[in-house]
Amino acid sequence: MRVSVVGGSVVPDPVDQLAEDVGRLLAQRGHTVVCGGLGGVMEATCRGAKDAGGTTIGILPGEERDEANEYVDVSIATGLGHARNALVVMNGDAVIAIDGAGGTLSEIGFGAVYDRPVAGIRTHTLSALDRFKACKTPEAAVTYVEEEA
Amino acid sequence: MRVSVVGGSVVPDPVDQLAEDVGRLLAQRGHTVVCGGLGGVMEATCRGAKDAGGTTIGILPGEERDEANEYVDVSIATGLGHARNALVVMNGDAVIAIDGAGGTLSEIGFGAVYDRPVAGIRTHTLSALDRFKACKTPEAAVTYVEEEA
Amino acid sequence: MRVSVVGGSVVPDPVDQLAEDVGRLLAQRGHTVVCGGLGGVMEATCRGAKDAGGTTIGILPGEERDEANEYVDVSIATGLGHARNALVVMNGDAVIAIDGAGGTLSEIGFGAVYDRPVAGIRTHTLSALDRFKACKTPEAAVTYVEEEA
Amino acid sequence: MRVSVVGGSVVPDPVDQLAEDVGRLLAQRGHTVVCGGLGGVMEATCRGAKDAGGTTIGILPGEERDEANEYVDVSIATGLGHARNALVVMNGDAVIAIDGAGGTLSEIGFGAVYDRPVAGIRTHTLSALDRFKACKTPEAAVTYVEEEA
Repeated sequence: MRVSVVGGSVVPDPVDQLAEDVGRLLAQRGHTVVCGGLGGVMEATCRGAKDAGGTTIGILPGEERDEANEYVDVSIATGLGHARNALVVMNGDAVIAIDGAGGTLSEIGFGAVYDRPVAGIRTHTLSALDRFKACKTPEAAVTYVEEEA
Repeated sequence: MRVSVVGGSVVPDPVDQLAEDVGRLLAQRGHTVVCGGLGGVMEATCRGAKDAGGTTIGILPGEERDEANEYVDVSIATGLGHARNALVVMNGDAVIAIDGAGGTLSEIGFGAVYDRPVAGIRTHTLSALDRFKACKTPEAAVTYVEEEA
Repeated sequence: MRVSVVGGSVVPDPVDQLAEDVGRLLAQRGHTVVCGGLGGVMEATCRGAKDAGGTTIGILPGEERDEANEYVDVSIATGLGHARNALVVMNGDAVIAIDGAGGTLSEIGFGAVYDRPVAGIRTHTLSALDRFKACKTPEAAVTYVEEEA
Repeated sequence: MRVSVVGGSVVPDPVDQLAEDVGRLLAQRGHTVVCGGLGGVMEATCRGAKDAGGTTIGILPGEERDEANEYVDVSIATGLGHARNALVVMNGDAVIAIDGAGGTLSEIGFGAVYDRPVAGIRTHTLSALDRFKACKTPEAAVTYVEEEA
């Protein structure tokens, strides 16, 4: 399936490693990564996915598709700015959110709007949100979305 | 100023009353209401604002501007679906969130993205989000966004 | 009714005058002007409409609503870039196109998509397009869209 | 490179054949097809491209990525309705327009907006539009966009 991975565009090393692990695990289990195409969690996840031979789709906020990070296979420009967050979520069957601030929160919200299961790692705590689960490890997050999507 | 009021499209009576009070108070203090143009919190807020002689803008998800509730003065069709949530927030100087589910959460997230102060009444608890404040009353919410915007 | 006026953002004097006349005439006949909110034809039309006491709506490509020209009453930011052209057309009951290049052509196309009558003045020649009429004067253009919308 | 192929969603047989030939030729010359993902010209072009072993991207108006025709390799849902036309053009380095009505006209307009060369086959006549060339055959259209992009 396709899994949208969302998170901060600038992140500290431990988060970068987590995102890379999520990407690698998704690819190893045969899933395609969808993301916002830029840096931070997006780039680390794509790097991990490519390292494991997976496929990555980047849905960019700007009009230039070459703004994607180097690990994106299919780069889609939108020119929509932050409204493209809706498209990132819409194009996955499930969502994994890692770290992140307001943009990531908007994507977790869209996960509920489009009825996608959302696994969160070190991100916002949203105990009341349907189909949202806080997970401690990439393994737990990937397993959760596999079971729920 | 313009204040974006976001919340559920179907809400119980006490929330409906809260939203109407928020709308009335915003109008009484000279602010314009921006919302998603549909029912529930959106309609109740517009009703309150019109009751106090205010002005209301509804930014709709569909392509037909006559889908707006009857208390919307300026109805803007977008045809963007849920991605229009970004526009609802972008067009206010501050946000008041009342009740709501995933869509409202996406709008609280966009509040942070566009650096708007967000007052929440009976909505998601987001203690870690910058410029977000949980408020108990319409008065507290309106005062918070007036001070912070 | 609402009439979307579209055209170039930088135009020579005679076109500027034409656009101002269109705006004035629309306002005199009780119509609201919808436009892209920026300069050139958009600004001249709004100036004419305001001069005659009309109302103007500007639907902007950027995220900042204060980028609208000074004659816009209701400024709507979209952050959608050129995709906002669809919204400019969608929000009118008819379209008047004046001069312009590719953006204006996209808006004439959207006029057909959303089944709006389109009057063109000194703009692209599109003899085969349904509900499109080339007009020589503001009077002829406004009369055409009044009759057809 | 990527070439956006645009045109009517319901077309007569000779146009269907033309579109299939365009898709096949693009694939044979190593280009990726970008289109709106639905039927008519979009489907025929993708069918031709896949027949020649090429790659196809479909950028859909709706929220469901499985609405794409069966010849689309990478399906991107947008939920933007007709505003997605801007994204179809933005994601190609050049445009080939075949037949079509208002939607196709909007895409030819966006070709000029984003400064893409546009080859037209049996479509709108736009003699004054910069970088637009009316072509009689798939061969001529593909050659034109290869030379101009």
